[in-house]
Amino acid sequence: MTPLYLVGIGPGDAAHITPEALDAIEHASDIVGYGLYMDLLGERMNGKRHHKRDLGEETERARLALDLASAGHVTALVSSGDIGIFAMATLVFELLDKANQGEENGRGWERIDIRVIPGISAMQMASARLGAAMGHDFCAISLSDLLTPWPTIERRIEAAAMGDFVIAFYNPVSKRRDWQLNHARDVLLTQRSADTPVIIARDLGRTDEAVTVVRLADLDAAYIDMLTLVMVGSTTTRHIRFGRNEWVYTPRGYEQKRAGASS
Amino acid sequence: MTPLYLVGIGPGDAAHITPEALDAIEHASDIVGYGLYMDLLGERMNGKRHHKRDLGEETERARLALDLASAGHVTALVSSGDIGIFAMATLVFELLDKANQGEENGRGWERIDIRVIPGISAMQMASARLGAAMGHDFCAISLSDLLTPWPTIERRIEAAAMGDFVIAFYNPVSKRRDWQLNHARDVLLTQRSADTPVIIARDLGRTDEAVTVVRLADLDAAYIDMLTLVMVGSTTTRHIRFGRNEWVYTPRGYEQKRAGASS
Repeated sequence: MTPLYLVGIGPGDAAHITPEALDAIEHASDIVGYGLYMDLLGERMNGKRHHKRDLGEETERARLALDLASAGHVTALVSSGDIGIFAMATLVFELLDKANQGEENGRGWERIDIRVIPGISAMQMASARLGAAMGHDFCAISLSDLLTPWPTIERRIEAAAMGDFVIAFYNPVSKRRDWQLNHARDVLLTQRSADTPVIIARDLGRTDEAVTVVRLADLDAAYIDMLTLVMVGSTTTRHIRFGRNEWVYTPRGYEQKRAGASS
Repeated sequence: MTPLYLVGIGPGDAAHITPEALDAIEHASDIVGYGLYMDLLGERMNGKRHHKRDLGEETERARLALDLASAGHVTALVSSGDIGIFAMATLVFELLDKANQGEENGRGWERIDIRVIPGISAMQMASARLGAAMGHDFCAISLSDLLTPWPTIERRIEAAAMGDFVIAFYNPVSKRRDWQLNHARDVLLTQRSADTPVIIARDLGRTDEAVTVVRLADLDAAYIDMLTLVMVGSTTTRHIRFGRNEWVYTPRGYEQKRAGASS
């Protein structure tokens, strides 16, 4: 059994890579991953074979990782954030599932020992930077309609609005997709106030990181890009100032009720 | 400005504590945290003041951490998992908010430099152990009605059912609370098949960790305890066997559609 590690390395700086993720990468002879995320690993990449693939060739990257491991190379398939959350891990299991159904070759894949290693996801970093927006019930929705039909996405946005979840939007916009986020905003405005705090977190963990708060009514896809996470508060999420700082947090129910009753 | 670190140390083993979390704990002179989670830190606790508080005194722990930091002690408030997800961080910000409203003393709190340090949450570990259940849209719901009224929780379960989210249930049961999880199961069975895979993850990261899969129809609160995370798949989540292993994953839309069309 040759290990294939599916590794999430967190939002983009070395301080958030777990020891388990580093151990897996150090143990691997072959690394499959997109260049942008790999700078982080620096000298740890010395002596390893690095198989780069462009974004958009994700299934090919997953298949390459399986084939390398089945050929006996200890392999790490690496992505930023948590590889299990809107990321590469699920593609590997899709390929195993297809091999079961005879739609993939899959020769030797049964000799691979797959281990999934979670990492800090963008939503967690965005929330942490400004406090604790994920302190109560939340959901995560990808707005990419490349692989999911828009009606399915729209139904999820409506459900999230009905359930009053804090919402992390992954893949909020792309060059080709510019209206979905504004549509989501308009759906949410039917259930939440115009003042609902929205966290906009760009380039998390990188030197040009920028995390800001806007009102839900002011959220505009024109100012958001692919590398941004958008997190919309629930009806109880609070945006406060204290001393020189500002914070966004979602209280547990009881404390909020007391505050509401006395203010 | 004295730092107050709000630190998540992950699900329960040293391999998942990030360097940022370790640095904060090493920098602190005072550690506020519940004993169960602190064993992990071992010798790192040497020479530090450890302020233990029992579970259930959560607000008191948060206030203590603020008061220690405002008195000039570099303090780390520590919890397992991600301190920003259904955990202590939000209590600290609730207290700041109350101080603004004159409901807390808050003297000196404006001199504190609060930094939130995220950690791997139980849902991520549960998903990783069996593959990639969180590969597509998901939500997290706490079933604790200590602080949230049951009708609010029920509305969230119904919304999650309607939106076909993968659902991570935190605090699924307690000694006092044994029917909510079964009610949630019954709501979900109106929208999902009896065969929907459910991950039951107990004592994650600890030596007696046990992660199993049951059918949604077989989910029963009688076999779940407080230290368990329950994750219910969406209508597209797959439970597969490959070689000697079993996996649970939630595919991206497109791949699943192809598999469905050809099988």
